[in-house]
Amino acid sequence: MDVAILGGTGDLGEGLALRWGADTDHTVIVGSRDAERGRDAADRYERRLDSYGHGATIEGTDNATATQQAAVVVAAVPAYHLADTVAGVADAFAAGAVLISPAVGMKHDGDGAHYNRPSAGSVAALAARAAPEDVHVAAAFHNLPAARLADLDRELAADVPVVGDETGAETAATLAEDIAGVGAVRAGPLANAAEIEGLTSLLINLGTYADIDDACVSFE
Amino acid sequence: MDVAILGGTGDLGEGLALRWGADTDHTVIVGSRDAERGRDAADRYERRLDSYGHGATIEGTDNATATQQAAVVVAAVPAYHLADTVAGVADAFAAGAVLISPAVGMKHDGDGAHYNRPSAGSVAALAARAAPEDVHVAAAFHNLPAARLADLDRELAADVPVVGDETGAETAATLAEDIAGVGAVRAGPLANAAEIEGLTSLLINLGTYADIDDACVSFE
Repeated sequence: MDVAILGGTGDLGEGLALRWGADTDHTVIVGSRDAERGRDAADRYERRLDSYGHGATIEGTDNATATQQAAVVVAAVPAYHLADTVAGVADAFAAGAVLISPAVGMKHDGDGAHYNRPSAGSVAALAARAAPEDVHVAAAFHNLPAARLADLDRELAADVPVVGDETGAETAATLAEDIAGVGAVRAGPLANAAEIEGLTSLLINLGTYADIDDACVSFE
Repeated sequence: MDVAILGGTGDLGEGLALRWGADTDHTVIVGSRDAERGRDAADRYERRLDSYGHGATIEGTDNATATQQAAVVVAAVPAYHLADTVAGVADAFAAGAVLISPAVGMKHDGDGAHYNRPSAGSVAALAARAAPEDVHVAAAFHNLPAARLADLDRELAADVPVVGDETGAETAATLAEDIAGVGAVRAGPLANAAEIEGLTSLLINLGTYADIDDACVSFE
């Protein structure tokens, strides 16, 4: 499967690219606003994977070209850039492509991190509005700690809640379970995205107050 | 320790009373709007505990009397009754008592359960407003599945996120860890309560869509 990661030079993008590179045969395409930055990041990830003995294929390009080439597009950009990023590549989606939002809107104050729910209902809803109608939209991967994901020496033990339409959610769940140590749990349609997006601020507060850095969540 | 459970005849109250009865030496006082209903529930819980070989002390009375007798008061009532319930017993709190809110505001629609955040910021904030100033307020126990809690044949494997002032949160964390199979994780001051309260609707959605009934959450 060809998986594009828009904003693939950021922390979560790096973590996902490295894990899919290490654990799957997917071709990962790192998208960036700047094609050269995308290529540089892809080269860096490939070298890192190579140093761990993984001969993965990581390509790098601009966000629109990445979108064109992929069946699945993960928009790993900050929440406040998400709608613009998706709108900017809207013409590039392949027919029946899947768009996955891992973005979380948060504000931080002296007490901790707080979920900043958009009036659209969720950040994922903003992505869905900006995407063409025939694109399947899902939300997933919010709760994977980026730093732990990007450190291939660290094991994961996480369940990823997934919402979306049937095709989108099924694809996101498969991509989550492709990563060693990660399971997927279905939480309904995209209308339930806020319940997932809000979890990340709790995890950040646990890092601050419970001394659980890069917390993984499991449900049983 | 004497622990009052206001609304102790409800599902969560029953579960907490049974677990503290089974796993600790605390005196549990089941509060109800109606003292006789409180006593009936307490007798029922004692008999259940007795059938499992636990000689626990469970008392039952009205909410105000329960509050008077306890160092810790758990307000296990529906979110929309919480402020009224706390205001109704406000004169009864012992000096320096701890009030713990396990209440979650939710609305349900055809898609799933959604956190219904009060304009006060959280349900716990409503409880704090209704309580006397010298009462320590914490929020905890939202994410313990009531049905699993109340079934002493089922094991728990859950982490309970706790917020509140230092005394309140410390007390809530201790009471959580008193229950076999339950850990406590600190998530900061009461201002971070919404991040905890929101988790419950995700757990309900997982029950609906992921076939994980009565999900326990762990963080590691």
